[in-house]
Amino acid sequence: MTDPDSPRARDVIFGTQQPRIQQRLDRLDPDLGAYIRDFAYDTVYDRPGLDLKSKELIACALLVSLGSPPELRTHIRGAMNAGATEDEVRGALMMCVPYLGFPRTVAAFEVLRQHLNARTDADPSP
Amino acid sequence: MTDPDSPRARDVIFGTQQPRIQQRLDRLDPDLGAYIRDFAYDTVYDRPGLDLKSKELIACALLVSLGSPPELRTHIRGAMNAGATEDEVRGALMMCVPYLGFPRTVAAFEVLRQHLNARTDADPSP
Amino acid sequence: MTDPDSPRARDVIFGTQQPRIQQRLDRLDPDLGAYIRDFAYDTVYDRPGLDLKSKELIACALLVSLGSPPELRTHIRGAMNAGATEDEVRGALMMCVPYLGFPRTVAAFEVLRQHLNARTDADPSP
Amino acid sequence: MTDPDSPRARDVIFGTQQPRIQQRLDRLDPDLGAYIRDFAYDTVYDRPGLDLKSKELIACALLVSLGSPPELRTHIRGAMNAGATEDEVRGALMMCVPYLGFPRTVAAFEVLRQHLNARTDADPSP
Amino acid sequence: MTDPDSPRARDVIFGTQQPRIQQRLDRLDPDLGAYIRDFAYDTVYDRPGLDLKSKELIACALLVSLGSPPELRTHIRGAMNAGATEDEVRGALMMCVPYLGFPRTVAAFEVLRQHLNARTDADPSP
Amino acid sequence: MTDPDSPRARDVIFGTQQPRIQQRLDRLDPDLGAYIRDFAYDTVYDRPGLDLKSKELIACALLVSLGSPPELRTHIRGAMNAGATEDEVRGALMMCVPYLGFPRTVAAFEVLRQHLNARTDADPSP
Repeated sequence: MTDPDSPRARDVIFGTQQPRIQQRLDRLDPDLGAYIRDFAYDTVYDRPGLDLKSKELIACALLVSLGSPPELRTHIRGAMNAGATEDEVRGALMMCVPYLGFPRTVAAFEVLRQHLNARTDADPSP
Repeated sequence: MTDPDSPRARDVIFGTQQPRIQQRLDRLDPDLGAYIRDFAYDTVYDRPGLDLKSKELIACALLVSLGSPPELRTHIRGAMNAGATEDEVRGALMMCVPYLGFPRTVAAFEVLRQHLNARTDADPSP
Repeated sequence: MTDPDSPRARDVIFGTQQPRIQQRLDRLDPDLGAYIRDFAYDTVYDRPGLDLKSKELIACALLVSLGSPPELRTHIRGAMNAGATEDEVRGALMMCVPYLGFPRTVAAFEVLRQHLNARTDADPSP
Repeated sequence: MTDPDSPRARDVIFGTQQPRIQQRLDRLDPDLGAYIRDFAYDTVYDRPGLDLKSKELIACALLVSLGSPPELRTHIRGAMNAGATEDEVRGALMMCVPYLGFPRTVAAFEVLRQHLNARTDADPSP
Repeated sequence: MTDPDSPRARDVIFGTQQPRIQQRLDRLDPDLGAYIRDFAYDTVYDRPGLDLKSKELIACALLVSLGSPPELRTHIRGAMNAGATEDEVRGALMMCVPYLGFPRTVAAFEVLRQHLNARTDADPSP
Repeated sequence: MTDPDSPRARDVIFGTQQPRIQQRLDRLDPDLGAYIRDFAYDTVYDRPGLDLKSKELIACALLVSLGSPPELRTHIRGAMNAGATEDEVRGALMMCVPYLGFPRTVAAFEVLRQHLNARTDADPSP
């Protein structure tokens, strides 16, 4: 059912960090690691019908609703890897204001700030 | 800050139902009605940076997280009014499976089914 | 620890409906009914330190966060029985906008409207 | 990985209602229906390590946390089909009091009451 | 609509920390910072009908429901700045027991303890 | 109503850590500490009808739903003290996948890993 010409969602989202992330999940529980790879990514994420950038912006908003900072940072990076601009990520997080209120949204922008700062520190070129 | 050439988000989302919806909110509480119109729609929704279709797909996912069927139906319609296809709406709701689990997602697809059925009943042409 | 000169919180909140409400809870489960009466009301609610009106306005806000319409109506009535004006109840519900967002708050004002309408219907005097 | 001698969890939980329930889910969305059958039931539920009765009592408690009455009723029936007594179901729901508070728990016992009443109506024998 | 003779809610709640807090929010996102100042505080909080102390006690309870420790500490301080006694803050947090259960409430009292300890350390006078 | 021949739930769950935990709660607020001991444990937990191991596996799942890591670790230990095997705890946490989604479940397995590692460090015997 997935498109053989599209890259896998998890290759785009995780990039070079994929082996490290998968290994961490497998160590927590091998079944859990397999469910996330085979079901969450290779089945649900790779299901056609909506582009990956939109899926990742939605994932970011849902992680704000869950109050899950570490995963939020992973999927802010994933949204940008899938082509989202910083403005689009800010727009996705801002949609949480009318639906979830300010405290959850402020925490999300704090995660965005940390991600952007870390990226700038790693790459000081203009 | 909003783009003067863009239609207002609330005109697109609510279409001809806007006066009825605004009147209902104003009757609940005039301040609440004004906050939703002036802040939620004319300030947050009309903020540039992300297209309206993406905002509405995100709104749908956040309403699944809140378990809010009536608003979900309004914003499924809004997403389609903003250009989302049925497949894209299904894709947005399906993203709730890995983040929120099945019960919330099943309830959301039930709301989608009611919306699609009502639309078919209203317009029996092929 | 409770003040012997104060009326019990549950007498004020439920008024003449108390026997009916307690009977309904006891039928669901006698232990559950006893926990609500003896612990939630006669221990936590009757604990001194904060006036009952404030407790009930807080209860209303917490029920908005839980999305629990039937209990919200009971405690809107309870807040008013404890001396809150309609304006104070509106003020308490409106505080949910910045903390919980609009969908939960709109649902709460709908419950308030139903309560006020039912009261008006029951008492048609000016 | 599943035990070939054990019945499938979904056969026990849904009993004779399984075709009707699966058909309803497939109509909402064929992918969603397949994910629930193949992943939620035939993968996660059929994973060995914990007995089905315990899984269903946990499912009931998680559905109380989600405030999902229709699914709660399905899994109260499922827990009993898997061998739980009425007392054990009451014990599982009562555990929600210290962790989730009273409003969610009262709503859950209301669902239990409806299930027990429907069963009694269907079978008037002693 | 606000009362010109009342101090602004944000002046009372944040006190001397207001410039630092506003600057932090503006750096996260200038629009987000403006929404919180102009909408959350100068519109919703400054809306008449309920006194500021009650609003802040409600804010504390809602932040317990969201599990938001940093904001909870800000609004425990805000409630006290608006005239709430320590006993009243304890009473507001204790109302979370019957509605939200123990884990969220214990986390809230931990935040209160940190706030009271920090205050005592800063001012060792009797 | 409790069984005089059964050990108290809190003696089993907390083991030798009970005095330290109770003292910490009492310092947060003496009433809160008393409510947890006398109501949550000696009334709700000690209520007959469901075995303690099942209660603790349910408690673990509910704490995953609340996103409460410190209490989750306490009750993972409590479930094992009440006789649950590591496989049964993994089975209880895994039930959160279909009901709550992956982020909450991953966080729970991280808490389990920390508990198991700490136990191994404390006891290096095979």
